[in-house]
Amino acid sequence: MPGANAAGERGKLMRGEQQPLAKLSPFAREVWREWQRLVLPASVGRLIVAASGGADSCALLLAVDELLKARRLAAGVCVVVAHLDHGLRGAAGAADARWVAELARRLGYECASGRASVAGRARRERDNLEQAARGERYEFLGRVARARGAGVVLTGHTLDDQAETVVLALLRGSGAAGLGGMSPVRTLDERGDVQLARPLLGWARRAGTAAYCREQGIEPRVDAMNEDESFKRVRVRRQLLPLLETLNPRAVEALARAAGLLRDDSAALDEETAKLLAEAARDPKLKLEKAAHASDVVAAGDGNKVAPLSVEVLRGANVAVRRRALRQWIKAGRGHLRRVELVHVLAIEKLLEGERGGRVAELPGACEIVRRRGRLWLRVKEP
Amino acid sequence: MPGANAAGERGKLMRGEQQPLAKLSPFAREVWREWQRLVLPASVGRLIVAASGGADSCALLLAVDELLKARRLAAGVCVVVAHLDHGLRGAAGAADARWVAELARRLGYECASGRASVAGRARRERDNLEQAARGERYEFLGRVARARGAGVVLTGHTLDDQAETVVLALLRGSGAAGLGGMSPVRTLDERGDVQLARPLLGWARRAGTAAYCREQGIEPRVDAMNEDESFKRVRVRRQLLPLLETLNPRAVEALARAAGLLRDDSAALDEETAKLLAEAARDPKLKLEKAAHASDVVAAGDGNKVAPLSVEVLRGANVAVRRRALRQWIKAGRGHLRRVELVHVLAIEKLLEGERGGRVAELPGACEIVRRRGRLWLRVKEP
Repeated sequence: MPGANAAGERGKLMRGEQQPLAKLSPFAREVWREWQRLVLPASVGRLIVAASGGADSCALLLAVDELLKARRLAAGVCVVVAHLDHGLRGAAGAADARWVAELARRLGYECASGRASVAGRARRERDNLEQAARGERYEFLGRVARARGAGVVLTGHTLDDQAETVVLALLRGSGAAGLGGMSPVRTLDERGDVQLARPLLGWARRAGTAAYCREQGIEPRVDAMNEDESFKRVRVRRQLLPLLETLNPRAVEALARAAGLLRDDSAALDEETAKLLAEAARDPKLKLEKAAHASDVVAAGDGNKVAPLSVEVLRGANVAVRRRALRQWIKAGRGHLRRVELVHVLAIEKLLEGERGGRVAELPGACEIVRRRGRLWLRVKEP
Repeated sequence: MPGANAAGERGKLMRGEQQPLAKLSPFAREVWREWQRLVLPASVGRLIVAASGGADSCALLLAVDELLKARRLAAGVCVVVAHLDHGLRGAAGAADARWVAELARRLGYECASGRASVAGRARRERDNLEQAARGERYEFLGRVARARGAGVVLTGHTLDDQAETVVLALLRGSGAAGLGGMSPVRTLDERGDVQLARPLLGWARRAGTAAYCREQGIEPRVDAMNEDESFKRVRVRRQLLPLLETLNPRAVEALARAAGLLRDDSAALDEETAKLLAEAARDPKLKLEKAAHASDVVAAGDGNKVAPLSVEVLRGANVAVRRRALRQWIKAGRGHLRRVELVHVLAIEKLLEGERGGRVAELPGACEIVRRRGRLWLRVKEP
């Protein structure tokens, strides 16, 4: 790589003890650049590296290992490899788990393994397998992180994963929240004490992670489910993205760029949404009546404690901001947004029309929105 | 269609003189529903119907004709058919023009025809053929509308066109402005006195327009350029959308729904953008210095008269809103946004960093942004 040595020399002069950058592979160098851009911890702290055994997460782990051994990451950074067997592939899943544990051992890191019953969760939560697997995985990573006192979980999602996510969101007809794809850094869950970071998301191509693993003498595992075209994501990966690339060789990068712009838009709209929710709940007439009708909003325990919203304030709001506000309000009241579609939000907006109260919009999962006395009330019915 | 007669009877009772809805074909009935939803003029006024001779615009014209003959549209509504020969297809283009004129004559409407040199415009404006054709077409429609005193121009864009537009925007890596696709109603151009309306955009599939034309005994023209796979749009139509439909049979509808959500988001962000621009230009310290340095902003005539923007106000703004504001400001100062990419906006944002003024960001087309005395100034250089 031209200029790498010169940069390495400068690096040595400027950073004293650190090894020159030239000692890193080009892949690890890119990871390090992104690491700094995302302001991930480099001097102290515990990191969880999620590893499936596939090329992407292996490449991430190997690059983190390079960064530690080349002292880009200081010795105070402690890595734990985390692997979840989703319990979907029997012996093959168990073999992957052993393989990841062995790789971690050879590299000198602790490996935390877990086993889940994704199929059971899918039935229980009425999710598809992919959603259920994701839910189990992130819960597992949260448990591992908290048990080890780690503040950051790293996953190996790549630019290709981002492009697939965008296409899948488009196929569902999602708005900016879905089309914005994954964030390079976000909180892992609502507890907010663990960050989820994806240092490959902004730049790494899947072909690059596989090539880098081979360069490092590692042959990653192949997950047969990644080849199974009954999964939409696999067909997007194998059929749709290659076709998009015939139309624009940099289509994957273009999709990721679009997603980034939409994430920025979403963040701006979230600010407006927070203002609107505060204003709609702050309706001055509300306080007087609130105590008297508290039973209206606390019928089913904690999940149900959201303030009613002023019809007038909602009516005067911009439609995109109002829809976001309604979704956030439902999420706060109901605990989640599963199966809430645009049609439900439109039905709630219908309640805002005209002067007549007493009307009801039903939501999936025994939840309803009632318009009464100039406000919308969210009620979760007793199971 | 079940229930159509009952609806027709109700229609007769409610609307007095009007014919029952049952007299309309299902296609025209959908057009009429959308007509009412978009609040297009139904009792009086001149309408321009843009007609290429292809199935979509023919279907629109035939449906409008049905609406007039069934008196959904009152006799006070006067239709003018407008056809532009783009000058790209020689004798075939001239034949299309004659065919459209003959169809208009048979239906009993005036036909306004024009001929453009799209290739010349493309060279002049350094646009591609599709952009140049669109520019010529909308200018022509504006001239026809104004010459006839028409307030509305109708085009036959369908749900398929919308889906293609969204995919093409995604391939360019566009944000919400591009991914939002076409609006069902907007002003035709910046003069704001003519509306452009697309009564097929929200629901009609291309297969449906062709079938409807045939039902009405019309065999629409086929534009060979619509089959030419050297155009990206044609490949999106013929290769990509069919593949998306194997993943979701209602993919075209999903793409259009996503676009609608993003248009709503854009409208919300546009409100915030307008507030930010007003605030950034209203900087209190600015008025004092403005007169003294007027030469800074009026170097190249009318195109250059935009107020400088406060660095401090821009710095404090949300990033998505700020980027929109900068783009709008450039458009106001420079007259257009051609060839202005995200990288240029990022370069302008760089100027906002730190305390140092005197720095410059270059834009394509002899335009530059200078940071000086706590403001950004837009300068269009003399040609």
